[in-house]
Order: sequence, then C-alpha cells, then structure tokens
Amino acid sequence: MPNFSKLVDSFVATRAHTEALAAPLSAEDQQLQAMPSASPVKWHRAHTSWFFDTFVLAPRIGESLRPRWSVLFNSYYEAMGPRHARPERGLLSRPSTDEIGAYRKQVDEAVVELLARTDLERDHELAALVRLGVAHEQQHQELMLTDLLAAFARHPLAPVYRDLPPASRVEATGLHFVSHAGGIVRIGSDDEAPFSFDNEGPTHEVLLRPFALANRLVTVGEWRAFAEDDGYSTPSLWLSDGLDWVRENGIDSPAYLRRDGGQVSSYGLHGLRRAHDDEPVLHLSFYEADALATYLGARLPTEAEWEVMAEGLHDDAPRENLHPQPLRGQGLLGMFGVGHQWTRSSYEPYPGFRSAPGAIGEYNGKFMVNQLVLRGSSLFTPRGHSRPSYRNFWHPSTQFQASALRLARDE
Amino acid sequence: MPNFSKLVDSFVATRAHTEALAAPLSAEDQQLQAMPSASPVKWHRAHTSWFFDTFVLAPRIGESLRPRWSVLFNSYYEAMGPRHARPERGLLSRPSTDEIGAYRKQVDEAVVELLARTDLERDHELAALVRLGVAHEQQHQELMLTDLLAAFARHPLAPVYRDLPPASRVEATGLHFVSHAGGIVRIGSDDEAPFSFDNEGPTHEVLLRPFALANRLVTVGEWRAFAEDDGYSTPSLWLSDGLDWVRENGIDSPAYLRRDGGQVSSYGLHGLRRAHDDEPVLHLSFYEADALATYLGARLPTEAEWEVMAEGLHDDAPRENLHPQPLRGQGLLGMFGVGHQWTRSSYEPYPGFRSAPGAIGEYNGKFMVNQLVLRGSSLFTPRGHSRPSYRNFWHPSTQFQASALRLARDE
Amino acid sequence: MPNFSKLVDSFVATRAHTEALAAPLSAEDQQLQAMPSASPVKWHRAHTSWFFDTFVLAPRIGESLRPRWSVLFNSYYEAMGPRHARPERGLLSRPSTDEIGAYRKQVDEAVVELLARTDLERDHELAALVRLGVAHEQQHQELMLTDLLAAFARHPLAPVYRDLPPASRVEATGLHFVSHAGGIVRIGSDDEAPFSFDNEGPTHEVLLRPFALANRLVTVGEWRAFAEDDGYSTPSLWLSDGLDWVRENGIDSPAYLRRDGGQVSSYGLHGLRRAHDDEPVLHLSFYEADALATYLGARLPTEAEWEVMAEGLHDDAPRENLHPQPLRGQGLLGMFGVGHQWTRSSYEPYPGFRSAPGAIGEYNGKFMVNQLVLRGSSLFTPRGHSRPSYRNFWHPSTQFQASALRLARDE
Amino acid sequence: MPNFSKLVDSFVATRAHTEALAAPLSAEDQQLQAMPSASPVKWHRAHTSWFFDTFVLAPRIGESLRPRWSVLFNSYYEAMGPRHARPERGLLSRPSTDEIGAYRKQVDEAVVELLARTDLERDHELAALVRLGVAHEQQHQELMLTDLLAAFARHPLAPVYRDLPPASRVEATGLHFVSHAGGIVRIGSDDEAPFSFDNEGPTHEVLLRPFALANRLVTVGEWRAFAEDDGYSTPSLWLSDGLDWVRENGIDSPAYLRRDGGQVSSYGLHGLRRAHDDEPVLHLSFYEADALATYLGARLPTEAEWEVMAEGLHDDAPRENLHPQPLRGQGLLGMFGVGHQWTRSSYEPYPGFRSAPGAIGEYNGKFMVNQLVLRGSSLFTPRGHSRPSYRNFWHPSTQFQASALRLARDE
Repeated sequence: MPNFSKLVDSFVATRAHTEALAAPLSAEDQQLQAMPSASPVKWHRAHTSWFFDTFVLAPRIGESLRPRWSVLFNSYYEAMGPRHARPERGLLSRPSTDEIGAYRKQVDEAVVELLARTDLERDHELAALVRLGVAHEQQHQELMLTDLLAAFARHPLAPVYRDLPPASRVEATGLHFVSHAGGIVRIGSDDEAPFSFDNEGPTHEVLLRPFALANRLVTVGEWRAFAEDDGYSTPSLWLSDGLDWVRENGIDSPAYLRRDGGQVSSYGLHGLRRAHDDEPVLHLSFYEADALATYLGARLPTEAEWEVMAEGLHDDAPRENLHPQPLRGQGLLGMFGVGHQWTRSSYEPYPGFRSAPGAIGEYNGKFMVNQLVLRGSSLFTPRGHSRPSYRNFWHPSTQFQASALRLARDE
Repeated sequence: MPNFSKLVDSFVATRAHTEALAAPLSAEDQQLQAMPSASPVKWHRAHTSWFFDTFVLAPRIGESLRPRWSVLFNSYYEAMGPRHARPERGLLSRPSTDEIGAYRKQVDEAVVELLARTDLERDHELAALVRLGVAHEQQHQELMLTDLLAAFARHPLAPVYRDLPPASRVEATGLHFVSHAGGIVRIGSDDEAPFSFDNEGPTHEVLLRPFALANRLVTVGEWRAFAEDDGYSTPSLWLSDGLDWVRENGIDSPAYLRRDGGQVSSYGLHGLRRAHDDEPVLHLSFYEADALATYLGARLPTEAEWEVMAEGLHDDAPRENLHPQPLRGQGLLGMFGVGHQWTRSSYEPYPGFRSAPGAIGEYNGKFMVNQLVLRGSSLFTPRGHSRPSYRNFWHPSTQFQASALRLARDE
Repeated sequence: MPNFSKLVDSFVATRAHTEALAAPLSAEDQQLQAMPSASPVKWHRAHTSWFFDTFVLAPRIGESLRPRWSVLFNSYYEAMGPRHARPERGLLSRPSTDEIGAYRKQVDEAVVELLARTDLERDHELAALVRLGVAHEQQHQELMLTDLLAAFARHPLAPVYRDLPPASRVEATGLHFVSHAGGIVRIGSDDEAPFSFDNEGPTHEVLLRPFALANRLVTVGEWRAFAEDDGYSTPSLWLSDGLDWVRENGIDSPAYLRRDGGQVSSYGLHGLRRAHDDEPVLHLSFYEADALATYLGARLPTEAEWEVMAEGLHDDAPRENLHPQPLRGQGLLGMFGVGHQWTRSSYEPYPGFRSAPGAIGEYNGKFMVNQLVLRGSSLFTPRGHSRPSYRNFWHPSTQFQASALRLARDE
Repeated sequence: MPNFSKLVDSFVATRAHTEALAAPLSAEDQQLQAMPSASPVKWHRAHTSWFFDTFVLAPRIGESLRPRWSVLFNSYYEAMGPRHARPERGLLSRPSTDEIGAYRKQVDEAVVELLARTDLERDHELAALVRLGVAHEQQHQELMLTDLLAAFARHPLAPVYRDLPPASRVEATGLHFVSHAGGIVRIGSDDEAPFSFDNEGPTHEVLLRPFALANRLVTVGEWRAFAEDDGYSTPSLWLSDGLDWVRENGIDSPAYLRRDGGQVSSYGLHGLRRAHDDEPVLHLSFYEADALATYLGARLPTEAEWEVMAEGLHDDAPRENLHPQPLRGQGLLGMFGVGHQWTRSSYEPYPGFRSAPGAIGEYNGKFMVNQLVLRGSSLFTPRGHSRPSYRNFWHPSTQFQASALRLARDE
C-alpha cells in the first residue's frame, strides 16, 4: 500500500536537497557546461522539475506549468517532442536561475497538493511516477556535482565549491579476497516500493562459478605503482580500444589526478590538494580499471558477482567531505558511497526485459549498447539512492564520474 | 594425435584457395582499400603469409623469409614490433603482387618441408600453430571478399568480380519459431583439433530461460516493409546510439541495397542487380537488426541461445553464387553459409578465459569490448570454417560484412 | 600636442559605453559563448580592462591590479605569457560579473590618476597607449554585440536584448554607380592622433584603373531574387571554396535570415521580426557577397577603390535601432554605420609595413593571411570608430559580423 | 598565324613526355593516392586525355571516345556534369593502366588527325584549345611527380623512382641582394601564342616602391640555423595561423626533410639521402617561408616585384636529377627550374580579369581565394612550362610541392 506521508516526505526532502546543493553557487557557476555529456547545474534543476511537470502534473491538471520551456528541458525523450541540442545547454542564459527557482517552488506545491487530494491506493500510477521522479532527481543530484567538477576542473585557478574539513588520516586495511562458492543465484529487483528502475528487472537466476571479491577498492598508491611501472605504455595490459584511447588522448592518469615526482595531486570540489596513497583511486575509465586489474593479477567482477556479494549491505559511508578517505575495517569495504565500481559486464537487457510503453519507457532500455555496467554508489550519490541491484552505466572511456575499481578473481 | 597428412592437406588447400580468390583480380584491383577497417587483397595475401613466416617459420628456421616486410604486414601484434598504419595499407604499391605471390610460394614450401621433418606427436605447438594459421587465413579469405566488395561499391561504374549464374527463383519458407525449453546448457569449445579459437572457450554452463528461434533469416521483403513503414525514422524502434548513427549518416538501408520505388536494387560481387523479396537481407548493422527485430515483434537471440540450437548442425549451404538465395526447407535454415547473425550479446570473455602468453595471445582477448557477437557464417565464409561455437564480432554500426538477422523470442 | 582633457574624456566615455552596453544583461547572459571565435560579454569587459592594466598601468605603477587574472584575460599576446584557451572562455564563471565590474572601476580610476600626474607632452608613449586602448575597447564594444547576437540566436526562444522602436518605413533609393577616373591615389593613414591602427599604414600610393562604386548597399530584396533564382546552387556564380562551404554547411541564407515563402524573417538583437525588401542585407559571408555580386553583373571593390571614394565622408548613420533601415538620399549611402563592406582584397601588409616591437606589435600584423578586408563600419560599431582608412578583416566564411555588400565595376 | 607543325610537335612531345614519366612505374605504383589533394599517376594520364577528348574532340567529332569515363576523369568542371569524389581517385582500379594507355593513343591519333584536316587560320579556337590542353598536361606532369613523391614518402621502406646520378658537389654563391628602383611597371601576359593562362592577364600597370631581391634561394643550411635556433617555437617569427599550424601538426621541418643531430636527411624520388647545407631548401609551406624570411631579416617578395625582375630570364636549369643542387653563378640564380617561390601576394584576379564563358572558364578564376601566389618553376616542372608571368598558387600550409624561398627587402 503506497504510504502518502512517506512519499511526500521523500519528495519534499529530495527536492530540497537539490536546492541545497546549488545554494553555494552563483548564477554564473550554475550556467557552466564543460562538455556535451555534462549539463549546467541550473539545467539539472530545471530538467528535474520539467520531469514532474510533464509526467506527473500535466496529464492530471491539464497543462504544463511552463509549456514554452519543454523544448529547453526535455533531455532525451523522443516521444515528448523536439529538444534543444544537448551540447548547447550552456547557452541557455534564459530562463534565469531565479526563474528556475520559482518554477521549482511552483512544481513542489502543485505536486504536494496533487498527492494530498489523490487516493494513492487507487492511483498506483501516480505514486509510481512520483517515486520515479524522486529517484530520477537523485540521479541528477549526483550529476550536478560531477558535471560541476568537470567544469571547475577546466578553470586555470582551481575554484573551490566547498571548503575541506580537517583530514583524519587513517591507513587502509590490507587487501584480501572474500570468496563465494558460485552456483545458481538470483539477482535483480522489480520492486515498485521502495523503488527500483526498470533496468534492474526482471529478477532472474544466473549460474556463477566460484569467485572472490577484494575487500576494498584499489588505492592511489596501487595505481601509482602501475603508472610508475609504465603501465600506460605496456600494450599487453590493455584492451586494444583502451590502448588507442590512451594514445590518442595522451592519457597518463585518471581524471583530476596528476603525478608530480613521487607524489600525486588531486583536484576536486574542495580545490587542489595532495592525494594520499591509501585513499581509493577514483575517476578511472573502464579501460584503465581493466588494465590496472590485469596489472594487479586480477580481473573485474561481473555485475552478478558483485550483486550477490552486496546482498544485505547498506550504504553507511560517511559523506563529511567530497574526497575519498582510506577504507578501514572488516568485511567488504566501500561497496557503497565511495566510488561506482566498474564491472566486466556490458550494459544489456536482463532476460525478459521489456521497456515500459510510452515516453517513460525511454528511461533505460534505449541506452543498452556500447556501455559497461558499474555497481555501487559514490561519494556524490545522495543518501538513499544506493542498493545492491542498482545498475549504473557509462561508456568505457568515461573518467568524469567517481568511478572506482574493486578486484575480482576466479576461485 | 595430430594427423600429418590431414594437416598438410588442409594447409595446402587453404593456401591455394586464397590464391584462387585473388586470381580474377588485376594488380590494381588487389591494391584497393575502401576504408581504414578494410584491407587490400594483396595485403591479405601477404599478411597471412607473414603470419606463418613469423610464428611458424622464423622461430624454427632462425629467421624470417622477408624480415624487412614485417613492418608492412604485421596487423596488430604489439609484441611483434612496429607496424605500418592500418589506414595506409592501400599505399603499399611495393612489394608488387608478383613479389607477394613469390613470397607465398616460398612460405608454402618452407612450411610443408618443416612439417615433413617434424614429429608432430612431440611438437604439439607446431601443429597447433599451423592449425591456427589455417583458421586465420580462412578468416582473411572472407575479408578479402568483403573488403573488395566495399571498394568496388565505391566505384561509379559498378565493377563485376564474378559473373552471375542463372538464378533459380524459389519462394522462402514461411516464418515460424522453433522452441527450446531452457535450463542449464553447456556452450563453448576448447578443442585443439579440429580447431577452435581461444575466444570460444572455456566451455562452460549457462542457465537459459525458455526461448524460441526463427526457422529462417529475415528477408528483403520484411526489411522493405519496415523501411516503407518509416522504420528508419521511428525513434521508439531504435537504441539511442542507433538512432544517432542513422541521423548522422543519413542511413536508410543496409549496405549495398537501395530502395527504388517499390523495388530494391542490390550491388554485390556479381555487379548491380535487382533484389527479390524472398531472399535474406544482408549487410545490416547491429542497430538496424535490433530495430528491425523490434519492429517485427521479436528480439535478437543471445549467443548462448543461438549456439545450443546450432548444436549438431553443419554448413551445407550452396556457394554457387555470391548473393543470397531464398531459404526453403525444413528445420533451422541458413544457420551457416548465408549471413553472420547478430546476437544481443556483447563480445566478452567467457568465465575463466585467459589470453595465451606472448604475441599469439593478442589474437582475440584484446578486442573484447565495444563489439557485439555474431554467430554462424556467411556466403563469403570458406567451407570448413563454420561451427556452432564460432564467435564473430563487429562494432554495432558495421554494415560491410554479410550480416543477417534471425529473430528470437521468449517462450 | 596631446590634449589631456580630450584624451581623458575619450577614455572615460568609452569605458562607460562598454558598461552601458552590458547593463541590460544578466550575469548569465554575460557568460554566453556561442562558438570558439566569439567571447562572452563579461570576458570582453575584463579583457579590455586587462589591456589597460597590462600595457598602461603595470609598467608604470610596478604591478598589475589583478596579476592572477592575466592568464584568463590575455587574448592572443604570445609575449605576455600563457593564455586560457579561447574556446573555453564561456567556462569562466569566476571572477563574477560583479568582480569584473569592480576591476573596471579600479582600472578607470588608476588610468585617470596616471594621466593626471603625467606630462603627456613628454610621455608620448602613454598617450599613444591610451588611445590604442580606447580604440581597442571600441572594437570590443562591437564584438560584445555580435558575439551576444550569435549566442542569443542559438536559443530556441529568441531572446530580446533591446525593444524595437517603431519602424519608419521608407523606400531605398534606386541603385546607380558613382565613377572614379583612376590614376595614382594615396591611401592609408599613419596618424597618431586622433588615431589609426598600425595596419592602416604606411600611407602609400596605388595605381587604380577607372571604376565605379554603387551608391548604396545591396538589399534584402536583391538577395531574395538571387536565392529564389537558385543562386545558392548555381556553381558558375561561386568561388570553388565558397561552393564547398555552401554544400558542406547547407547554407541557403546569410546568418539570422530565413526565407519563408515569399517573405524573409530576421533574428536580431530586437528579437525575431520580418525583414523588408528595401533594407540592406547583412551577415553575408565573403563567399555569398562575391557570388551575389557576380549574379548582379558586378564585382566587389578593392580596398583602395573603396577608400578613395570614402575620402571626406563621415559616419552620421542613425543608431536608433539595431536592425538596418532602407538607405535613402544623395551620394554614397551607408559607407559607415550600417554594415562592414567586403572587398576583393586579401588582408596583407601595406608596402613598408612593419609590426611594432614587443607585445603591442602582435596587434595586427600576425593576422595578415587567410582573411579578406572589409571597409566602413556597421550599426554595431560605436560612434567615433569609423574612418576611411580603417581595415576590418575576417575569414571568408564569416557570417556573424554585420557584413554587407557594395557593388563595384570597371569603367 | 597559328603554326600547324609547331602545334602538332608540341602536342605530340608533351603527350609522349607524360608516358615517359609513367614508364618506370608499375600499375600498382600508378594507383597510389597519398591524400585528397593528390591524385594517382594513372588518373593524371587519364584526366589529361579526358581534357582533349571533352573539350577538343567531342564538340568536333560528335561524341567522346569514352563517354562512360567522364564521371571518373572530370576533375572540377561543374559545367561538365557529375564527378567522382576527388579523395577516392585511388579507388579507381578500373579502367586499368593498360586501358588508359590505349585511350591515350586513341586521343593522340584523333587530335593529330583533327589538326591535320582543320584550317587553323580560320579555327582559332581549336588552336587555342590544343595549346591550353598542352599547358594543362604540363601542369599535370609536375603533379604526377609531386603526388607520387607524397605517396612514396608514406611507404616505410623508402621506394626509389629513379636512381641518383653521382653528385657534383659545389658551393652555393654567397647571398646578396639585387635592387630595383620601383616606379610604374607593366606585368602580366595575355598572349595567346606561345601561351599564357587566363589568370596571367590582363596585362596591367602596377606602382612599385624601390626593393631588392636575393640573388639565390635560401639554403638547407640557412633553414637548419633557423630550426636549431628554435625557430619553430618562437611565436614572434610567425603569422598566427602559421603558429597554429605548426602546433596542431607538430611541424618541425619542411616535407621530406628531417634533422638528425647536426645533419639533415632528405627523402625524394631518388630515395633517402643526406641533404647538404648549400643546396636550396624545398617543400617549405608559405607559413615556414614567411617565418624563415622574418628570421633572416627580410620578407617575401610580392608577385609584381618577382615578375619585373624575371623579365627576360629563361629556364635553363639543369634537370639531370630530381633533387636540388647548390646554386652557383652570376645574377639571379634559380628563378626557374629549382623551386616555386612563395610570394606575399594572395591569389586574386588582376584588374579587369574575367573568366572565359563556359566550362573552360572554370580553369583558374574560381580558385582565387585562400591561396598564395608562387612564382617561377621547379625541378619537377617540364621544360617549356616556365615564364615570368606564370602564377602558381597553393594554400599556405602546402608542403608537398617543390616550394622554395627567395628573400626580398625594401630599399
């Protein structure tokens, strides 16, 4: 049974968190678009509101609150009419951030009012759409930070989004592997509540061979050894496309990291700082993660392997700051809340998967080619958006997400 | 036990077949390179010889027969030293086709002589390398034809490679689906003899759900209905990357096909002709195959589904001509010898896969990303190169291979 | 003798005009960069201040007012150290527009104070630099408008910079040609005061043949006839590179103009409106201007021809609005203040030209290749920046400047 | 009066020289196309024949000898119908070199026969067209060599076109300047016989200031000093577009030259050899020539300056081999027959220039933008194709022509 007050709470809290993330930024900061695949903060704020406006409000109250803006803030829904070109989102100085703020308030009020006067036990679709909208907005909260980071990183003067709290330096726990016996396991989720995306289902059985997963993420120090050992110019470690990517782009490090003598400097939303060997290395591309795993004598996990090991784990990672801390403790560390972990699994439909009909059906299915699955969540992921069945996906050269490496091996 | 005379026979026959394929072509024809991912016929003739020279002869007789040519005819083996840039293979007017012919003869004699004086029961590696070289050359025999077709297709005057035999017009058998109950199945091959590539193994178990496969390939007429029904401009049928590819390249048909009023013309190695509705449609990209399957209310098979259904089937497709004939008969038609069939499976390592050490290990593993698996074989595939476990792979926009579509569905 | 109060007046008025142009724009509007060759309004405001800061203030007061910003606001002066990449100027959210406003005020005060305490009769260099800085800022005033227009034109909702005053519709004067007898003429200027750029000198003699110049600019109606007569697809009218440009970019009109049935709509800083046949056509590329002149049985003037005819003329064009008005009256109409007029002259050094030593010498000389000269000024050019010897220059495909066409012919 | 036997002699000799140039090359060599702006040798042989076939024979004998080939061998004549894409000329394996040889013979016979039965005193147009065809073929003779060089230079094994005769090492004459007093001079040519291209006329007067021209071309040693003195990374020496070109393409030498310690190696049609400091440096781009002239304290000449100094000079340069020899002697050395000399003049129409009507009018006029004029001729230019008024033209980044540098300065 859909729970009205829980749904409203989650809606209100999520919407407010978006505004809190944007609050430290000027109108000019919110306008930045670093590259075609990133979007301005103000665009994320407007697009997430357009989503509720278009899919929740308009069909129920008869019209959109801002019909003229649809062309601007439709992201990729072919069924919803023409769209502004993605690479040009940074050119939308109008509407202003203030006007977008007003739009957000109006959408918030209208949705809350709509929920208040709807019998959610009868209108299951409304509850499902609001839950989808909340999850969708959480995704964009993470993108707001990663896209902002990509833009700030291009600024010669290393801008700071948030000041860095004092570091509590700890050592990382030593690397070891945690085994699984394999066999037929059940993965995926098709729960409507609390929530899962369509691409997480149907639940289904998979046959696994015995394997083991590393207890923690690969560190800056382990990456540094690879780099210093000429890892970036050793062809036998690389997939062929990965080697081409390294050579064509002159890659010699993950995004925002730079080797400097024996040290590593890192740029992040706290500005420029020195990275420590014990902290997890982030912003690896799939190509780098795969080569680094090979160098370390291991391999990437498959998504099914990762998921069965994550069963029952929760995201309790600290979020006090926006750069990664050394992982210390028992069990599988950093499954959630540090870095999305590349898997060796291509992003494909699960057996029996079908896209939902209509525009909402464009949500996930149409992207199921040319991308690799990542599992877990990152320090940019909002609380409550982590779960074992969650499938993140990016092209194999992507570095601007907070993407990490957890090793796996056959047993 | 390796069988000497069978191995020599297979080597000699394969080497001779390459020369037979090239025989109708002038030195100028053999020089053509249509695009970076295709190679000139003369390059294929030289490269396949370089393979034997480098991996079979040089380590055993002390030096390569043409050490200066290694830079020209190494394809992608990073471990074997520098390579000539792939897009520039069409610029190698020297050595001449005659010199390459002489090189081939010399390699042939040296390999046969080496085999004659080697105890293959003790030198398993030699037999394995020769078998690999034969399979490798068979792959290049197919590429010689597809690459030549790609080049001839760019010529305004539609050159003819081989005259067309008189057509025996037949009707295609009606479409129906053949079911499989699912369950745990075993796929893959790691047989050294007769032969399988490293990427076909290890054999392993997979858990399948009930499914069915179409009895024949999708036809030109079925594709024509899709095209006439605005299939190329209906976003809901396409993967997002596929739609981008269609729009950016102005795609409205598979390669070498053109709609012309209600008819379809087709260019092939027999020259320009009219295509018939009942013949299988070839030269589809993965994107087109996926959209066409969706349009027809079905989906692509996975590679495991395809393989279990192919178990026990053999390639007895007629090769009397180089354009496809309507498929007529009982059972699963056209599994081999007509068109490679796109699957929904990304090209990934099988569980437990490890590349062989050394340069030979670069054979398959390093390409396991960004490509989709095709199964079966085509009318350009030489006899003896078809088997159920064979994994072909291409990027999803590839049209220049003889790639076809077999529908699948859940049961 | 340098006149102190006139110099200060001109400095103060020019600096204030820049701020007046920016005043209607939000911080977000000022951030927009439409393309690599355009810059944000706020960047223009900062760069023109950096120019005074770097070349006038720093050498005389010992240091720059904002030394850390030099990397951001240096445009192309190789001698002044590293520069931020031009295509990324739109990513400079920091410093903010407010901080840039404060910088401008501080520069203004420091320059005025410096001038007040300097004996300009002895320090000729200071007066020359300030005059150069003023002329430089006037150039950027025009670019602020053309670059803003280029950005706003990409917005789907056609933003308005300034409301349109009521149009006083008049008819254009009929086209006729004004003759010149040719002979040896003197062109160019090397006056230090009031001012000319280095590329306008040395003055020198040129031998001209008899020619004539049209009394007014080519109109929208004349362009429309060309377009309706298939001008864009008639190869014999075009330079070869121009035809390639048309075909590769699908060009069928000048920038911001669109044919719509028998009418023409035009986007400009007043928003979207209907263009009238009698108004001058603007935003032509050189290629279009050349083809249109050929279509009209005429040719482009050379820059020397234009200059001798402009001798003694002054810019008294009305600037009440930002779209062009029909030209009506006696004599040569629209030489200044409507649209820069393409000439057939490549941008080359005049005989005896030498760049000034040091960074200031990078001002003009290093751009003297691959561009064509335009003469006159446009409705975006600030008052006081027009003169007969002024040489504007752009690549031949440039449409985003207010570029017009005046016909010429041999006599 | 057109002289029949002289015209026939010149036609026959020119046609035979083309074949002599191609004779050392295999069919495969003749197929090579190094880049879009170069063409295969066999294409040049066919295109020059198409020119006579289309413009001389077809209008007079009623039809082309090979009407189906027109689409293949039309170079850029828009008025003559569709054309095969220039970058794909290397894909024309058919017709074969033998078929092209047969075509050439047939064209030769038909033209000679046509001339024999025509009264050239009455049919001036025929004589003019044949003369144009001969001059056109001479241009292509030079391109056959430069395009072949560009292709061979991409081959890792440094092919040899012709063996190198023993070198007679001489020292270059010291550099000095030869003065001209300036004033009004007459340049250009519009002679129908012996011949000039349309772009050389009309003859016209130009006003020159006093200047001087270097007695010889700049040498490899002088270039080496520039390169060793960091010339390629000294911004103040370069035009802005030139510096971008250097940086984007990693340029550090003219084409086919490479510095190697203190020495310079050079690849040419004789293969790889060591270059000597005293020989003229060839294969400079305009950008390099301009920067090198600036480095040497001089400038490039204008085309008018070059032409008045060349008045009365003839091409008597030795052609015993295909690499440049040190220039030694009196007067202006190397004006012809060594390297085309870049001028500072953009390629523009002379005053009063009009293209001829019809397809022939596309010969030169439509290329008059974005290119710079070179004067003189090179060691690849056939005898009899040099004259003072000749205007060669290339884009400023072009290196694959035998382009040289002669310094000029103001007096």
